[in-house]
Amino acid sequence: MKIAVMKFGGTSVADPEKIARAAERAIAARRRGEAVVVVVSAPGEMTDELIALAERVTPTPDERELDQLIATGEQVGIALFALACKARGADAVSLTGPQAGIDAVGGAGRAQIRRIRTRNVLKHLKAGRIVAVAGFQGLAPNGDTATLGRGGSDLTAVALASALKTGRCEIFSDVKGVYTADPRIVHDARKLKKISFEEMLELAGAGAQVMQARSMEVAERFGVELHVRSAFHNQSGTRVVAQEGSMLEKAFVSSLALDKSEVRLTIVGVPDQPGVAATVLSALAADGIPVDMIIQSAASQSGVNDMSFMTPKNFAVKAKKSLEAAARRLRAERVDLNDQVAKVSAVGTGFRHSPRIAATMFEALAQSKINIHMISGSDLRVSCVVDLKDGESALRAVHKAYGLARGRR
Amino acid sequence: MKIAVMKFGGTSVADPEKIARAAERAIAARRRGEAVVVVVSAPGEMTDELIALAERVTPTPDERELDQLIATGEQVGIALFALACKARGADAVSLTGPQAGIDAVGGAGRAQIRRIRTRNVLKHLKAGRIVAVAGFQGLAPNGDTATLGRGGSDLTAVALASALKTGRCEIFSDVKGVYTADPRIVHDARKLKKISFEEMLELAGAGAQVMQARSMEVAERFGVELHVRSAFHNQSGTRVVAQEGSMLEKAFVSSLALDKSEVRLTIVGVPDQPGVAATVLSALAADGIPVDMIIQSAASQSGVNDMSFMTPKNFAVKAKKSLEAAARRLRAERVDLNDQVAKVSAVGTGFRHSPRIAATMFEALAQSKINIHMISGSDLRVSCVVDLKDGESALRAVHKAYGLARGRR
Repeated sequence: MKIAVMKFGGTSVADPEKIARAAERAIAARRRGEAVVVVVSAPGEMTDELIALAERVTPTPDERELDQLIATGEQVGIALFALACKARGADAVSLTGPQAGIDAVGGAGRAQIRRIRTRNVLKHLKAGRIVAVAGFQGLAPNGDTATLGRGGSDLTAVALASALKTGRCEIFSDVKGVYTADPRIVHDARKLKKISFEEMLELAGAGAQVMQARSMEVAERFGVELHVRSAFHNQSGTRVVAQEGSMLEKAFVSSLALDKSEVRLTIVGVPDQPGVAATVLSALAADGIPVDMIIQSAASQSGVNDMSFMTPKNFAVKAKKSLEAAARRLRAERVDLNDQVAKVSAVGTGFRHSPRIAATMFEALAQSKINIHMISGSDLRVSCVVDLKDGESALRAVHKAYGLARGRR
Repeated sequence: MKIAVMKFGGTSVADPEKIARAAERAIAARRRGEAVVVVVSAPGEMTDELIALAERVTPTPDERELDQLIATGEQVGIALFALACKARGADAVSLTGPQAGIDAVGGAGRAQIRRIRTRNVLKHLKAGRIVAVAGFQGLAPNGDTATLGRGGSDLTAVALASALKTGRCEIFSDVKGVYTADPRIVHDARKLKKISFEEMLELAGAGAQVMQARSMEVAERFGVELHVRSAFHNQSGTRVVAQEGSMLEKAFVSSLALDKSEVRLTIVGVPDQPGVAATVLSALAADGIPVDMIIQSAASQSGVNDMSFMTPKNFAVKAKKSLEAAARRLRAERVDLNDQVAKVSAVGTGFRHSPRIAATMFEALAQSKINIHMISGSDLRVSCVVDLKDGESALRAVHKAYGLARGRR
């Protein structure tokens, strides 16, 4: 039995017409002789609407009950999907995460898939049914339905592909694939035929909203090739594959990302003494605040220095409070917050051995007279923080400088 | 442990403000020292909205998938209810039908509760939590979530009260209790302090939309006293109790019902021969069409007669088709459908021994110059079908004739 695993995101099942198109895609695969498992997200904005409803009941909803609530979104998605298949003469059945044998561990809202008992899914597949599985949820050991955290439907699809040993998984959404840069901003951006898991992970870290990092890590570890493609067009998308040997040898830029969702926090006038960075970062870690691009300025003659980092906007208030407490303990001068910043990143391979790649980015920004606030880099990524107003022109300038519109991948 | 079972209907949890009021009622009982189980319906019109959504996907939704879909309504209700309790400092937990140990048998959309494994509910009650249970659903033997049919949340509440041996159950809705007639039509209608299960069953059969018949049958059988009351007012409602011996001895009218949801179907010119009524009724039964008030006219000299009955509006088309097929087989003349009719019923006790009760109704209608199309009666009910336009004035005339505004119950 050849099994196809398809995942449809919220925008791909946002209304009955879109659900019909997604169902037709599943039915076409079934008619080609494949057994079909479809992972379905909550239609459209339903998850956000349910959260808004909970917040009208209480500003601080309990996580277990929030899970019980928002798990209904995917349940609506799978039932409508199965109905659409049956209305077109294809046998189908919808299964919630618990019904599909997806066992989860860890707390509400951030559970992890522990294992998948595939018996029930396989039973329905063998009976010729298209099986629509609710993404983003699993059965907790205490019988609760736990959600896997935002974006977790990708993870459900990848984990099912792994458990069912399909070797591949199609991720349908409203984007046609992975581009060299956001085509809404860079008009000659090019769709990539393939990209490595490592690059996709870096892109996710750089703020590109293609796929959730955890699901790519799982796909890579279990050898599940992904095909990121549009639910509304028939052409191929981008294949996410394991890094090939030949790829490792040369340095190149695959894709750019622009992230406007972060703020910059700076703790100013920190005494230059051992352990300061650790104190600051431990305080932030204890409060669960994600940080990126930690930059510590060189100590000035006055014996104090500054420390800056980026954090998502929705953590800004919490991060500032946490940092101000640390600043008092360290006798630092003050904490500054700048929310008018954007991060431009180039993602690729072999950057370490090719300083030309980072240099090209800096030159492109300099020629466009764009100030660079912060820089960080690794073998797979180089990022510059610029003023928010310069973000889009920076992305276009860098895309042009790398010649990405005429690349070969 | 003294356990209170409360059921809140859809209108009682239609928005966050109403959910808050319902939660406060549960918390008040908890603070009085009772263990509290709350059965919650889907908020507001959610069930109907989900059905409409399914019908946009396919005009004939599969029942199993429709169950998977509409079960989410109650799941939203319980999660919001538990959140509202926790926001007010009371510990609470929401349980779906399957999580609450409610085992169901029978097909999707019309399942019956087979038994309730109360272990999980009792565990949470013993821990001091308010337990919000999703009404209208249970776990089918194959692992599906099956719904109990419309109005099934009442049944969930009654079955839980029975399984938990509470002896009573409060049914909160947007009505203040059971009235001598619909107070929106009859302005001096009076709220009854108590009524028997038998009378409530007859009222449900007569089209009064107070409570679903099945849940009253179960309540009566398992000795669960019901208290039908308003979610928005503090005064007592109507207690539904077992018939008392003293009640059986005298004849009286408790309450009136007006049903505008039915149509009259007549099969005209049926040859007067044995087995005709059986043929017609078997055909209707085979097609699952509910019938009420079957009236066969006396055979005329021509050797043919007419047969009329009432059926709910939403079965009208199906019933007419079924009846026309039967008419062809029986060589009957034609089938007439009249959707401009209303049924006025008086419900009470001891009618058989007191023909005065039926006579009073006919006289009241005659004095108001209202034509009577059909009549039927039993020991507990007398019903007249009148023109739809006369329905409300008929109800007022009969209410006055029985003197119900100044009754003693």
